Amino acid sequence: MDKKRILISAGGTSESIDSVRSITNHSTGRLGSIIADTFAANGACVTYLCSERAALPQSEDIEIVRIKDVQSLLEAMDRLLCAHKFDCVIHSMAVSDFTPIGSASIDEIVGSALNVLDKHSLTKDKLRDELRSAILSTCTAPKENKISSKSSNLMMLLENTPKVISHIKKIQPDTILVGFKLLSDVTEGELLSVAHDLMIKNSCDFVLANDLRDICGDLHKAILINRDSILHRANTKHEIAEIIYSAVKGALK
Amino acid sequence: MDKKRILISAGGTSESIDSVRSITNHSTGRLGSIIADTFAANGACVTYLCSERAALPQSEDIEIVRIKDVQSLLEAMDRLLCAHKFDCVIHSMAVSDFTPIGSASIDEIVGSALNVLDKHSLTKDKLRDELRSAILSTCTAPKENKISSKSSNLMMLLENTPKVISHIKKIQPDTILVGFKLLSDVTEGELLSVAHDLMIKNSCDFVLANDLRDICGDLHKAILINRDSILHRANTKHEIAEIIYSAVKGALK
Repeated sequence: MDKKRILISAGGTSESIDSVRSITNHSTGRLGSIIADTFAANGACVTYLCSERAALPQSEDIEIVRIKDVQSLLEAMDRLLCAHKFDCVIHSMAVSDFTPIGSASIDEIVGSALNVLDKHSLTKDKLRDELRSAILSTCTAPKENKISSKSSNLMMLLENTPKVISHIKKIQPDTILVGFKLLSDVTEGELLSVAHDLMIKNSCDFVLANDLRDICGDLHKAILINRDSILHRANTKHEIAEIIYSAVKGALK
Repeated sequence: MDKKRILISAGGTSESIDSVRSITNHSTGRLGSIIADTFAANGACVTYLCSERAALPQSEDIEIVRIKDVQSLLEAMDRLLCAHKFDCVIHSMAVSDFTPIGSASIDEIVGSALNVLDKHSLTKDKLRDELRSAILSTCTAPKENKISSKSSNLMMLLENTPKVISHIKKIQPDTILVGFKLLSDVTEGELLSVAHDLMIKNSCDFVLANDLRDICGDLHKAILINRDSILHRANTKHEIAEIIYSAVKGALK
């Protein structure tokens, strides 16, 4: 692994709701930090792209780049991928699928729906479109800096964030890409199927599939797959780091 | 302050959205930890009620009680207040005003609204009620463990959390209660007015009023008020701890 350049993302993003609240994706970054240390100990040149509170690797010669939300992750990822040729990208960060873009009380939303209904002559399709846009604009109307605690039954509008993982092979088609898929309380068959879809969609070379139910401190069951099959199983974070290291090493030969 | 029993809450609550996401109130707990150390250094017997990631006081003889969300805070607060007579409660924790109770895509919400509209004969008031309950039940219908990242324009339904601070004087009318009011980017007049309302509503003896704009690391401007007037101003977290200590000491004489 000497002089190979590796980019590892770790931790969880945090999307601001207002000046005092965020939607946070739980992830301590411990797994990512152990993977980073494993590659560094084997001579790789590691860049560690992590959220503000993520665990840090212990090796001193790892470059640390911090991000907060999906937007800043996207910018940092694009910048790093354009600045250096990475032999491998290990994208273990828990990235928020949604970001808040507005909110309104349920009474405001019902009020905006009733206003639309006053236009009796609308066809059903037109009514659907108008209801949709009335609700969206009620939620995204300018608000105070901090949502008032007096609002009752608030509804928060979220939009999908860009898929950061889809950028990686587009910018660097030759890098070895390791994706991660975490589900919660599913069968192994379902987990492997969803992990395989992630791999195909984003041109990953490997995907680490795991279930929240099987993670408890350092005990951490996971399955590493490639396009064709299950490659390895692991039971701890250190074992996961080892199986990823060995698969990437094989692919880089 | 010898043998006086003090309860200090610190940090920020975290409300689960699903198994991998939460709404988190930002608060490092550093101010609360410094207040706890100040009282402990002056001989008080301190219980520190804090969120999982809050900064901890350095004094070794402080009892630490951890909570996660508003519900567990409420239970711990009630249990502590019923178990011991506290001479003073300093409630510096950033407590979430809302907790997620469900979600639905905007298309599901518009669909449920259109279903209501098919009942042509409804009066406007009846329509309002039916729209409201259709939206609520669409959002709170049972979902998977983890919100699917495929939903577009998700709407999250939030309900108000119970006001923990309102319990304190109800259970212990004789305790000295110090409340905290944090606003964002308001005039001093507005800040003091809202802080005064908090004091009256919850029978606080003192309220520390501060604005997010004036907090940067250990620099932390704040104003301590009682029912009648401004008592003290502070410019750092240590000064805040000192003015609260001195006000509580005076009140306990």
